[in-house]
Amino acid sequence: MRNVKLVIEYSGTGFFGWQKQPDKRTIQEEIEKTLECILKEKVELIGSGRTDAGVHAMGQVANFYTNKSIKCEELLMAVNSVIEKDITILSVEDVEIDFHSRKSAKEKHYRYVVNNSKIHSALNQNREMLFKHDLDIEIMNVAKDNLIGKHNFAAFRAVGSSVCNTERTIYELKINKLGNRIIFDIVGSGFMYNMVRIIVGTLLDIGSGKLEASTIKNMIETGKRALGGQTVPPDGLYMVSVKY
Amino acid sequence: MRNVKLVIEYSGTGFFGWQKQPDKRTIQEEIEKTLECILKEKVELIGSGRTDAGVHAMGQVANFYTNKSIKCEELLMAVNSVIEKDITILSVEDVEIDFHSRKSAKEKHYRYVVNNSKIHSALNQNREMLFKHDLDIEIMNVAKDNLIGKHNFAAFRAVGSSVCNTERTIYELKINKLGNRIIFDIVGSGFMYNMVRIIVGTLLDIGSGKLEASTIKNMIETGKRALGGQTVPPDGLYMVSVKY
Repeated sequence: MRNVKLVIEYSGTGFFGWQKQPDKRTIQEEIEKTLECILKEKVELIGSGRTDAGVHAMGQVANFYTNKSIKCEELLMAVNSVIEKDITILSVEDVEIDFHSRKSAKEKHYRYVVNNSKIHSALNQNREMLFKHDLDIEIMNVAKDNLIGKHNFAAFRAVGSSVCNTERTIYELKINKLGNRIIFDIVGSGFMYNMVRIIVGTLLDIGSGKLEASTIKNMIETGKRALGGQTVPPDGLYMVSVKY
Repeated sequence: MRNVKLVIEYSGTGFFGWQKQPDKRTIQEEIEKTLECILKEKVELIGSGRTDAGVHAMGQVANFYTNKSIKCEELLMAVNSVIEKDITILSVEDVEIDFHSRKSAKEKHYRYVVNNSKIHSALNQNREMLFKHDLDIEIMNVAKDNLIGKHNFAAFRAVGSSVCNTERTIYELKINKLGNRIIFDIVGSGFMYNMVRIIVGTLLDIGSGKLEASTIKNMIETGKRALGGQTVPPDGLYMVSVKY
């Protein structure tokens, strides 16, 4: 038995997210279908984490088990020549039998792209969030420092989420300005449902003066989601990479 | 009577090109429709040049006449809030009454983006051409120098094109490599139908060794389209700007 690891790029726009659902186009199903067509056997793909409808990936990771002896390089070329063009398999690699895309993950890197301007960009449709208010990047940088480290992030997850352990570690959070674009790079031990989108939304609301810089600290201390800012839309979110 | 100039960004993917055609979604019609809805009068938009289905623009220029007194800034915001999101109006400006987007144009800048790799990129779908063969950029740079200047470009237009004067001037042609991407920037007095796509296709076929570096010189001297390379697909082509 082989355990095969894939690194995957996709545009999330045309999908109902990563996870298989009846009668919906999902990334997981699209890749499984293609692998099954090439390998002529049933495949179950384990993703490093689900992404929502509209969320993109530059380096999603998944693995599956197979008995077939096809070479990795051959499988890579075969899948890419058959698969729909909004998915790319970036690499195919044999890994240890106990490697598990989700459970073995040590660190995840997400990026969020904001177009801080009065006008949307046609060429970046579905690839970023338009945010029209002026932003004070310095205040955002002061506020975001409160997120770094090991904290209880209960306030930074979707209402109704039922995760038991809400403790996570954020290793790094960088806010870069490139022309009109504000780019958030967040690296952490793991992220709960909507966590990145709530972090970015709260930082934007702080940067535009709608919320105080102390909001982040208060959210961590009280665990209250209601204190935070908006959940920003999926279009600007990218799963960049997963470390093992 | 006012003459109003627009600078326009669009993703060409969802359109049958710039020019109005019955029962087809076109950029010209989409903008005219939006302007008519806001101005409550018939509008005829004059573009600097047609772009084909799938061709993008970062700075297409168009103008129209109106008697309405709406401020440029107001019109800019109104159009962008109503128009479909694969079009952006970047600026609105009053110009001299005899300004004509096409006839007054002095210089056009086009860009072509090639992904020189074995695998397509999901996130750049419809935004570039995938070219799998290795490229010798040095040879392409030698060959492209023959294009610079005033020449008869009869060999660099679509078969069946009926333009009378096939003389054009190319001021600049730069080939840049950014990681796997090869970016062609071409500035000229004007371009005939498919001219940029034939230039890029011929340079790619020279770079990959399919054609001799002398091909360009022979094409200019003989006017024979058949000597040249492929016409590359529209997806990688961008109208960058027009100078007046």
